[in-house]
Amino acid sequence: MNHQELVTRYLSAFIHTLSEHNVRTVVISPGSRSTPLAVLFEEHPDIQTYLDIDERSAGFLALGLAKASAQPVALLCTSGTAAANYYPAVIEAYFSRVPLIIITSDRPYELQHVAAPQTVDQQGMYGRHVKHYSQLELSEHDLSLLDYNQALASRAVAISVGLPRGPVHLNVPLREPLVPGRLNQSCATNATPVHQGVLALGQNQLKAISERIMSAKKGVIICGITDTDARTFGIIELAERAGFPVLADPLSQLRRGTHSMETIIETYDTFLRNEHIASAFDPDLIIRFGAPPVSKAIKLWMEHQTCANFVIDGGMEWRDPICMATEMIYCDEQRFCEDLLPLINKKDGTEWLHSWLTINSTTKTVLSSISGEQLLNEEKVFLKLAEWLPEKANLFVGNSMPIRELDSFLFTHSQSAQIFANRGANGIDGVVSTAVGVALSRQRAILAIGDLSFFHDMNGLLAARQNQANLTIILVNNDGGGIFSFLPQASEKKHFESLFGTPHGLDFAHAAALYDAHYTKISDWGAFDAALDDSQSIDGLNIIEVPTKREDNVEKHHLLQRLLDERFREEVIYES
Amino acid sequence: MNHQELVTRYLSAFIHTLSEHNVRTVVISPGSRSTPLAVLFEEHPDIQTYLDIDERSAGFLALGLAKASAQPVALLCTSGTAAANYYPAVIEAYFSRVPLIIITSDRPYELQHVAAPQTVDQQGMYGRHVKHYSQLELSEHDLSLLDYNQALASRAVAISVGLPRGPVHLNVPLREPLVPGRLNQSCATNATPVHQGVLALGQNQLKAISERIMSAKKGVIICGITDTDARTFGIIELAERAGFPVLADPLSQLRRGTHSMETIIETYDTFLRNEHIASAFDPDLIIRFGAPPVSKAIKLWMEHQTCANFVIDGGMEWRDPICMATEMIYCDEQRFCEDLLPLINKKDGTEWLHSWLTINSTTKTVLSSISGEQLLNEEKVFLKLAEWLPEKANLFVGNSMPIRELDSFLFTHSQSAQIFANRGANGIDGVVSTAVGVALSRQRAILAIGDLSFFHDMNGLLAARQNQANLTIILVNNDGGGIFSFLPQASEKKHFESLFGTPHGLDFAHAAALYDAHYTKISDWGAFDAALDDSQSIDGLNIIEVPTKREDNVEKHHLLQRLLDERFREEVIYES
Repeated sequence: MNHQELVTRYLSAFIHTLSEHNVRTVVISPGSRSTPLAVLFEEHPDIQTYLDIDERSAGFLALGLAKASAQPVALLCTSGTAAANYYPAVIEAYFSRVPLIIITSDRPYELQHVAAPQTVDQQGMYGRHVKHYSQLELSEHDLSLLDYNQALASRAVAISVGLPRGPVHLNVPLREPLVPGRLNQSCATNATPVHQGVLALGQNQLKAISERIMSAKKGVIICGITDTDARTFGIIELAERAGFPVLADPLSQLRRGTHSMETIIETYDTFLRNEHIASAFDPDLIIRFGAPPVSKAIKLWMEHQTCANFVIDGGMEWRDPICMATEMIYCDEQRFCEDLLPLINKKDGTEWLHSWLTINSTTKTVLSSISGEQLLNEEKVFLKLAEWLPEKANLFVGNSMPIRELDSFLFTHSQSAQIFANRGANGIDGVVSTAVGVALSRQRAILAIGDLSFFHDMNGLLAARQNQANLTIILVNNDGGGIFSFLPQASEKKHFESLFGTPHGLDFAHAAALYDAHYTKISDWGAFDAALDDSQSIDGLNIIEVPTKREDNVEKHHLLQRLLDERFREEVIYES
Repeated sequence: MNHQELVTRYLSAFIHTLSEHNVRTVVISPGSRSTPLAVLFEEHPDIQTYLDIDERSAGFLALGLAKASAQPVALLCTSGTAAANYYPAVIEAYFSRVPLIIITSDRPYELQHVAAPQTVDQQGMYGRHVKHYSQLELSEHDLSLLDYNQALASRAVAISVGLPRGPVHLNVPLREPLVPGRLNQSCATNATPVHQGVLALGQNQLKAISERIMSAKKGVIICGITDTDARTFGIIELAERAGFPVLADPLSQLRRGTHSMETIIETYDTFLRNEHIASAFDPDLIIRFGAPPVSKAIKLWMEHQTCANFVIDGGMEWRDPICMATEMIYCDEQRFCEDLLPLINKKDGTEWLHSWLTINSTTKTVLSSISGEQLLNEEKVFLKLAEWLPEKANLFVGNSMPIRELDSFLFTHSQSAQIFANRGANGIDGVVSTAVGVALSRQRAILAIGDLSFFHDMNGLLAARQNQANLTIILVNNDGGGIFSFLPQASEKKHFESLFGTPHGLDFAHAAALYDAHYTKISDWGAFDAALDDSQSIDGLNIIEVPTKREDNVEKHHLLQRLLDERFREEVIYES
């Protein structure tokens, strides 16, 4: 067998094995060294390929495709700095538990560290930010390593979808010539099925926990983003039986859907900033599911509690940035609820739960009061967006301010919606591309994003155009870094604007034109409403820009707190 | 002393020490965790700061500033994926020997691996692509670690400018509050001066080498990019005394300047592709300086030689991708020439050198013949550009095709010019930002770049605009990956256009408008000449787009080889 035939056989077997393990999507960036893999992926009947010229955007595009499909997605690039451009997406995937198979083609050993072109040190180049690293090894004499390479593919996928899910890096050194033959169909038999179990507690453990729950009079459930949709398991039933409120992070997906909302609290980030309220709620048990919530208020409130604090994590990590956990429970979230429910007797609607619901509804009324605002401002953008969201909408929210605004204004609703964000490392980078991935995987998506984050990944718009993604982008443009106005840095008047405000003065109409995007710049709320409604029928890229002022943003948040305080005094929830 | 005072003292001392070691330029990306460092850098009277929102571009901007100034340049970013965006520039700096001090602010230890926001594993995150990694350690009780942090700063700079030069990573965990006091002026005394020696050979070693050189009748000197400007040391004198031709890579800087050109050969990449000529030149000694040259023809030619092959490297690496070195000489290039010259007797103009010069001038004539071409094409762009280059021009060339075209058409000229490129890892990423760095450091620069590479780092144009860089960009737009047409992949008709040609169809006029760039799209050569001349008087960003066809490019190169063959036969340099 000649070199070309051997390479074709080896890589065909490798690709078939990936495909048999449900890796059916690959994001490819053009390059020379990756040619055999690129061509064979393109040839494979069951694998869909997307092209993305910018590897940084490609990494996040794959992240979005994997998030939205809940399936492992592969990445392929050529040798050299191309692979380094994946690093931000690899890190986000690692901390947000998204399965990615990162395939970096490489130059062979004899070209390492001898000043050969496009040759860098790719072995283990993502350090501790991948769950696993391996290197393909192609024999150039025979097929003796075929089994090894197939096992390597099986193992790589198994690790990426294993607990906790995450990225895996495979480096593939290839010698020239780099043009493969046709995909070999006859070598797809060796994929090793992997049967992944979940963590389950024993009866004694369950009994002990159920007693703690039943004896708790003032329990609270806090639910951040979970590895599987929290709506699909018994967390609601558990809360209702125990009479506990569920402080539901926007990414928990619990705020919208047809499930019971009788225990869902969504405005805690606003009312827990009120010290009277915060101190009035003194729980005797806190049960946390998923990643820490977006809300900072919840964190500060929890730091003042001394009660038992359970952290449930089927991924066996230590998700406790505030060191408040009194017990770590390593058990699959769904199994935990299912196995526990039979052991919990239904409690009657408690005063405790009632008081949370009362404060919550009062807070909603106050938050909704900004709907009267005439001037364009971020808060009302998110109030309106949340109200408007159509059934089964896929909404991606950027980091920094957008996710916080959505946290404040996404109220419970019976129309389901899937909320996405990059909360592994909370970067403002790669957000556009991740949203494009969601749009491609789910036919249509909406992205709410700030101007700095939009600028950072503007290159992501090319893949959106080239792959015909239906993505509406709500671009909240305050010409700079809005979140810094909320931080102590804002007092640094002398350097603030140059170091933190960072105004760029970009007219994004040109960016829209560059990528053939439908573009609307909003001047009043009527135009915003119309643009939202039109977006449903616009295919391709659609950018709705809302100009806002950074100062307003801060003032508005303070104003809302004052209004809330007044309202609570009126309702005599606490004395003046 | 309170937390703020301690942090201010520690970081002031650190920054003063960097500044005393000639770190006078810092590229800052906005963020929260980096606030104390950002503010104190901004406060420092001797340090110039540049802001760049996109950390990937910022990394390359710093790379360009360091290349052009030959001084170490610092980078500063916040915690999280921001730091990961530096990776491509860090790798390029490592392999191209550019001193960078990468300062990544971090969250403190207690927030590591507990799902805290914007907290990733930054310790040693650039792996083997930095020369050194350390972490600042601030005592929160007293100033007992002041000396340590100052020594750390001294050492970091020493390593980055030591042999070989390269990037160094310093991670800086900081606790809140993050607002510093004013820069402390009274703690700048502890910087430890570092006196860096260079490698020098002993008399016996020099004598042995000089005898080898004098006994060689058909010696060849090959000079790629060197750590210090090859014009400034005795390489030319050495060649003239020994009667050796100097095959001068465009990045060797030897092709332009007021020095003697009597031994300079610049069209070898063209004529060594002619097998008759390649086999006619059979050297008995090859002496290589600097990085391997851009030319692939020189590599293939060298692989057929069996003579002694010296590689001189003052950076003590193994720059021999083709395993042809017979002796590695670890000695400073300048010292090598200076110490050797007295030991070499002047040889009379040799037949050997004469034959190289003859072939070279014939080849120049043939290459120049394309000046008659009416249609726009890449070759003539570079022929004209090279002819036009004004005195002291700073020309940055992109990777993939531009550097190769320049290699063919940059002929010797008495007007000096500095040629820059990113040839450490040869990536197409970050090229715009690196060129912006050169333009900012040298007041004005010209960038010749292809469309894919331009697109990849389009974000780099914002920093250019915000920092008023005077940069003229000659954008050769063949709507896709031109270089692939030269590779065997081109035979892969079935998938070629989608995987390699990757047409994007972008109208870059919109990109120019987005960044307020002066923009001209060329329709004929007259317009190109006018645009080049006008560029001298245009401040800020100036984009000159030349639309070309990928197919033409390949044909043109084949045509030139045919013309060359005919011409050689006419001149009876070899028989038909």
